[in-house]
Amino acid sequence: MRAVDIIRKKRDAAELSRQEIEFLIEGATHDRIPDYQLAAWLMAVVWRGMTRAELAALTEAMLHSGVVLDFSELPAPKVDKHSTGGVGDKTSLVIAPVVAAAGLYVPMISGRGLGHTGGTLDKLESIPGFNVNLSLKDFRRVLETCGCGLIGQTPEIAPTDKRLYALRDVTSTVESPYLICASIMSKKMAEGIDALVLDVKTGDGAFMKKQADAEYLAELMVETGTRMGKKVVALITDMEQPLGRKVGNALEVEESIEIMNSNGPEDLRDLCLELSAWMFVLGNRTKSVAEGRKLAAEMIASGRARDTFREIVRLQGGDPKVVDDPSHLPRTRHHAQLHAKHAGFITGIQCEHVGVSSMLLGGGREKKEDAVDPAVGLVLEKKIGDAVKAGEPLCTVNYNSDARLEESMALLEGIFQIGPAAPPAQPLVRKIIGAP
Amino acid sequence: MRAVDIIRKKRDAAELSRQEIEFLIEGATHDRIPDYQLAAWLMAVVWRGMTRAELAALTEAMLHSGVVLDFSELPAPKVDKHSTGGVGDKTSLVIAPVVAAAGLYVPMISGRGLGHTGGTLDKLESIPGFNVNLSLKDFRRVLETCGCGLIGQTPEIAPTDKRLYALRDVTSTVESPYLICASIMSKKMAEGIDALVLDVKTGDGAFMKKQADAEYLAELMVETGTRMGKKVVALITDMEQPLGRKVGNALEVEESIEIMNSNGPEDLRDLCLELSAWMFVLGNRTKSVAEGRKLAAEMIASGRARDTFREIVRLQGGDPKVVDDPSHLPRTRHHAQLHAKHAGFITGIQCEHVGVSSMLLGGGREKKEDAVDPAVGLVLEKKIGDAVKAGEPLCTVNYNSDARLEESMALLEGIFQIGPAAPPAQPLVRKIIGAP
Repeated sequence: MRAVDIIRKKRDAAELSRQEIEFLIEGATHDRIPDYQLAAWLMAVVWRGMTRAELAALTEAMLHSGVVLDFSELPAPKVDKHSTGGVGDKTSLVIAPVVAAAGLYVPMISGRGLGHTGGTLDKLESIPGFNVNLSLKDFRRVLETCGCGLIGQTPEIAPTDKRLYALRDVTSTVESPYLICASIMSKKMAEGIDALVLDVKTGDGAFMKKQADAEYLAELMVETGTRMGKKVVALITDMEQPLGRKVGNALEVEESIEIMNSNGPEDLRDLCLELSAWMFVLGNRTKSVAEGRKLAAEMIASGRARDTFREIVRLQGGDPKVVDDPSHLPRTRHHAQLHAKHAGFITGIQCEHVGVSSMLLGGGREKKEDAVDPAVGLVLEKKIGDAVKAGEPLCTVNYNSDARLEESMALLEGIFQIGPAAPPAQPLVRKIIGAP
Repeated sequence: MRAVDIIRKKRDAAELSRQEIEFLIEGATHDRIPDYQLAAWLMAVVWRGMTRAELAALTEAMLHSGVVLDFSELPAPKVDKHSTGGVGDKTSLVIAPVVAAAGLYVPMISGRGLGHTGGTLDKLESIPGFNVNLSLKDFRRVLETCGCGLIGQTPEIAPTDKRLYALRDVTSTVESPYLICASIMSKKMAEGIDALVLDVKTGDGAFMKKQADAEYLAELMVETGTRMGKKVVALITDMEQPLGRKVGNALEVEESIEIMNSNGPEDLRDLCLELSAWMFVLGNRTKSVAEGRKLAAEMIASGRARDTFREIVRLQGGDPKVVDDPSHLPRTRHHAQLHAKHAGFITGIQCEHVGVSSMLLGGGREKKEDAVDPAVGLVLEKKIGDAVKAGEPLCTVNYNSDARLEESMALLEGIFQIGPAAPPAQPLVRKIIGAP
């Protein structure tokens, strides 16, 4: 078998066999196939796509390039949630403790933010002392103790995904639903879970701006996970405006704690309940989604989710005081506000620009190697549908350095659309794919 | 400017600017852009193609990655011929001396054979002592002395084509008409010529099996050359059977000498006259193609082409005795023959398999690094349209090693189609593109 022939086959739109895909991925894992051949193959995949059988083979080959965790000895189902990323999406911080408090296990391996989107690891690291870089042994101990663990990618899990991702990043081969699916699913399937709920975002603040693209990716992921013997469901959810009101790492931890304290914005709470409910259904904890929602709401109302979150923070080396007093979270030295030029209703928010504005202030990363200022971020004082008077604040900007403040404020100026009437409310969950 | 953005642009079917293409090619030339980015870009070009403006920019950037020869001080036009390669195509060996004998200059830089096709350099090297690796200084001296020179690629000419070609070879990105055009034309334009005649082969023994593909490539090359201020014409010629009767390096030199001795097969002679005639027209040596044909025939009939060839051989270190006595060419120790199973007419010859059969015996290269046995090859005793009796020889096999003889003979078994009637004769030149 030769890599050049496999590249040619994909270039010519033929289906690759499982053996051919394994040859490529094992070759990549053991440095037998050079980057230039992988790069040409990746571009051919962007071009020609993959069949479902090819995709399953690719995902499995990437999964088996590293360690596959085994939590089968734990006495309840293992479930996880994965989001394709957006602006202000802090649901993982709420969902993991909610679901763990109700008796399921949530072994959650997350990523970092890039560009306009945030990442769970960056948010967690805004909690003083919180360690996302646990060894797999410590991860297992935390999971056993409190029902969930929140860590970053380890070198042991799907190492070939890391190599391929780095290559995709510099060869403009990131945006293939097949490669995205294989990358996500190989890592998630390595977590030793029984079921997975996918939150596939669509809209201006998502990677998939078009709903059809989001649905296609969701279908690929559901089918791939199902072929691998897991229960998988995907929710297509709205990302036309940030989720909740706070965007920025410490700010998002704060808002997550608000939710766990039965406060906080309704959209964020609703989505947390919805995603948790599906995890309960797939994890055989409740019979229906409605029951699942109720159970999730009880975990919040009873304070058990907050208690579990405090426990996770403590077990992973963080300062548990932040859970009861968010003033222990980092704050910026400076604030600025954006005000409405005229009265009306908010008819739209340029969601991607919200993320970019925060990034420009240091709240996110332009390049992977950039550092993040955990305190920086934005608080939206108004969201779509809200009435606004002339001169009222639309957005509060929390910053430390004014190096790119002007650029950020200039971008924010155009973010809010104000019209004469409130637009009709849009559902947060647009579609469910793979419901049992 | 970043390579990753240029790759994305091409991936998304946008037109690259001249500056972007220069950035890539200069980056490749000076090792500033890694192979994996070039590979992804090459595959995106195979996918999306190129506009004529992109193609001209690419060809010029590759041309200027090295030395561009300048023969403007020579007292007559400089013309060349390039063939896209086939089986038994030894026209260069005849044309260069024919055209030089008539007073034009032919600075011909050729390639080697690969797979089922032969290469001019391998053929020339079957002449004992013949040196195709002249320095550019010696090339100039030979050209000035006898009106033509026949050498291989030098490191100074279009070095980035060499790098890109090596990369294309291992990433299945060879078969793009745009990349083929840029590769050929950048090297040919570096020869310091005024005009170029292209022999674009089509049929079973050609790279372009389909005539439409051959015509498309021909149009690209004619337009690219014309944009660069050269006179270019392309002949689409038949490669449904080998050209002439002999296939193999020394055998093809022998057949070329037969032509220059006013013998040899008619199809080969006709194509040599036709291509030479077009070189005379583009080089302002004759007013019409008909006159050009006549002039070429005179150069052969008078022996002046043969005299010029003898002179080239001598000037490039070869043994000039071969020209008058081909028994000085290497011969194989063994011969075998394939015989007709029944009587009839030859209705078809699987041309690519003829080339592969010769290659298997050592007459060609399976991989670039393979050595070639100059003596090995085939002599077709019958060609399309010939009558054949049962038991008559169809093909003589000249070999030294029997390592792959069985494989070669098994392939040859199926090469000749015999039917009840001769098929209608097909024209050798199917179309002319870019005629002035």
